[in-house]
Amino acid sequence: MAQDVQIHIDPELVERYIMEMGRFGAYAGTGVWRTVYSPEWVQATDQYAAWCEEAGLAVTRDAVGNVWGRLQGSEPGGSIVSGSHIDTQRPGGRYDGTLGALAGLIALKVLKAQFGQPKRTLEALSLCEEEGSRFPSTNFWGSRAITGRIEPGAAEAMQGYDDETMADAMRAVGLDPARIPEAKRDDIDSFVELHIEQGPILEHAGLPVAVVDAITGIRHYNVTITGEQNHAGAFPMDLRRDPMAGFAEIASGVINTAHRMGRPAVTTVGRAVVEPNYPAVVPHSVNFTVDARHPDPGQRAILYARHEALMQEVAERRGLEISWNHYVNHEPCLSDPGLVATFQKAAAAQGIPFMTMPSGAGHDSQQMEHIAKVVMIFVRSKDGRSHTPEEFSSIPDIVDGIRVLAAGLHALAY
Amino acid sequence: MAQDVQIHIDPELVERYIMEMGRFGAYAGTGVWRTVYSPEWVQATDQYAAWCEEAGLAVTRDAVGNVWGRLQGSEPGGSIVSGSHIDTQRPGGRYDGTLGALAGLIALKVLKAQFGQPKRTLEALSLCEEEGSRFPSTNFWGSRAITGRIEPGAAEAMQGYDDETMADAMRAVGLDPARIPEAKRDDIDSFVELHIEQGPILEHAGLPVAVVDAITGIRHYNVTITGEQNHAGAFPMDLRRDPMAGFAEIASGVINTAHRMGRPAVTTVGRAVVEPNYPAVVPHSVNFTVDARHPDPGQRAILYARHEALMQEVAERRGLEISWNHYVNHEPCLSDPGLVATFQKAAAAQGIPFMTMPSGAGHDSQQMEHIAKVVMIFVRSKDGRSHTPEEFSSIPDIVDGIRVLAAGLHALAY
Repeated sequence: MAQDVQIHIDPELVERYIMEMGRFGAYAGTGVWRTVYSPEWVQATDQYAAWCEEAGLAVTRDAVGNVWGRLQGSEPGGSIVSGSHIDTQRPGGRYDGTLGALAGLIALKVLKAQFGQPKRTLEALSLCEEEGSRFPSTNFWGSRAITGRIEPGAAEAMQGYDDETMADAMRAVGLDPARIPEAKRDDIDSFVELHIEQGPILEHAGLPVAVVDAITGIRHYNVTITGEQNHAGAFPMDLRRDPMAGFAEIASGVINTAHRMGRPAVTTVGRAVVEPNYPAVVPHSVNFTVDARHPDPGQRAILYARHEALMQEVAERRGLEISWNHYVNHEPCLSDPGLVATFQKAAAAQGIPFMTMPSGAGHDSQQMEHIAKVVMIFVRSKDGRSHTPEEFSSIPDIVDGIRVLAAGLHALAY
Repeated sequence: MAQDVQIHIDPELVERYIMEMGRFGAYAGTGVWRTVYSPEWVQATDQYAAWCEEAGLAVTRDAVGNVWGRLQGSEPGGSIVSGSHIDTQRPGGRYDGTLGALAGLIALKVLKAQFGQPKRTLEALSLCEEEGSRFPSTNFWGSRAITGRIEPGAAEAMQGYDDETMADAMRAVGLDPARIPEAKRDDIDSFVELHIEQGPILEHAGLPVAVVDAITGIRHYNVTITGEQNHAGAFPMDLRRDPMAGFAEIASGVINTAHRMGRPAVTTVGRAVVEPNYPAVVPHSVNFTVDARHPDPGQRAILYARHEALMQEVAERRGLEISWNHYVNHEPCLSDPGLVATFQKAAAAQGIPFMTMPSGAGHDSQQMEHIAKVVMIFVRSKDGRSHTPEEFSSIPDIVDGIRVLAAGLHALAY
């Protein structure tokens, strides 16, 4: 291992790749609308494959349309893979996902050009789908196929926003849903995912990049609180069982709980539906969500216990019925400590200022963690924005991110 | 005036009238679905007119379809009128409105039979529309016509839930919208409206009837609070401008404010619409209503000032934008003190226990107050329910209410 090599990344190449990739599904100026298996998606994966070939990587496409660019190592051992997803929100921007797929490709291109064949096999990866923007009932389609976590029949069962099934969408681009199991890999040692931060923490810290030591644990509570529907004028306050009053107290309470626990705890009440939702009627019920996240397993348990105790206490005190379930419940995904250390050292060796932080958003790395060691690299997001055409990361920051990525891969593979 | 006469009301007649009237638009057992100018409404008004004639009242129908049953007095002076509206919610029950129209008719029938011609003219009144259940942009159609408060062209402009105009609906039952101004009356001295309470106060007090000394003042605020839409995972709590947090604090605050002020202050947050309303997105905005009511003009001003100060303070402290307007703003309608005293004495003389209370709901009396002295009588509602097929008042309570009504009318007219 030669830690102190300096990695050179051409900013113009980086910008050209980003802008050219952004043309596939270009939407309203800086936006991109590129859902899995759409014509734009086909163009983008073809372009990715073409650039991999240009870089001297051996290109293969798997059964779900993930594109792999392989740089064969001279010694045995599992692959060290870097990439991210190439699909977007409806619309998203040029950076979420795509930047990580391009970063893996550019890093391998540069490493091959600068250092030749590695000892360990390196692979760049464009994952077919992560956002759930065409098929709401799933996401991580690409990384779930690689990790063997797609159930038989799922492609036929899965219905999209436009009524087609995932299986239909696959067949329309020449993929056979019956062959999904063939995408499974069991020879990956490490997965390194570069991604935009999607939050404002790096911007506020004045830093271009971060090494990610964990992906937060997420639970989505779906809560219904029910009281007694009544006339807004004729029913005195002291006799009401008002679910809006209970909801408001709970929403304030869970938000304040996460705020007081401090970073990185976050709790969001993003959705509320009031029945019957008339101005002059004390509501019958409020259905709402509580999205609560913490990357530390112990703190996460405390956060959830506080939320549940509050919900129960408020409902009981106010004579309201309450029920909930969690329809999303992801454990925290901890980065491999060895990989974290490797990429911290790589950043330091490149002279790039960085911090170590958890990810508050979900990523393909959570899936890959089932079959490989994982770590992520974050690049600063302007105003913390993502999932919008306005998302932006600067070329200098992106170049810094790819330098950390390439330097770390160099340390692992050469 | 002979205060201490005993009024006899036949419970079987009362029950028969209520049940027969409930057949016109009968819906799902105990419900009634009878919107203005519908075939069911025509049947109900025809029945009302027939019963008025049976009672020996002189029947007229005005330009909007209000039915009047007149018992001419022997002396000059404005009429003393008693009635309420005959239309219902979709569906409502058998009592809201209809009971007041029938009570006026039954009281006059009994007074005529028991005491003959009065000195002052008495009139029973079936008002054509109050609920706004067919034409959402208005209500009080009957009482607004009588008080000359329908603007020229309103019937043509007013669109119903089913796309027809009020003018079309009138023409379909043989009424000419151009003649609406002819319904105006300027010879009404007093309007006495019996109505179900629609709230639980009488039930909790264990009393059958109330004399109503005021109809509450109502203001509906339509409020929009706007923050910054962000990723629920990647954006730390301390950097958010979360309109849900602001909304929840305001909803709790305004509800608690009215509760602490005590009866009869009421404040309801009945409607809330979150944008974009996704579980994993800190919302962009919450649009909501605040319905705040108080029958005392001074206390009402204090209630509104507290609500507005709270909304402003929460928004400013949280860095949120807030704006509001009031799309409903009715001043309190105070009952005539002389009429209140007359009906209090009438109840006492009949040996009927009662309380004096304000109305938290709006009523035709608010309109009639522009041309006449007004007072209302409330009859106990089971569980405080109304605007539903489940609304119910017992025949003994209703008989007590009509006895108070008739005794008061006797005091005024004989």
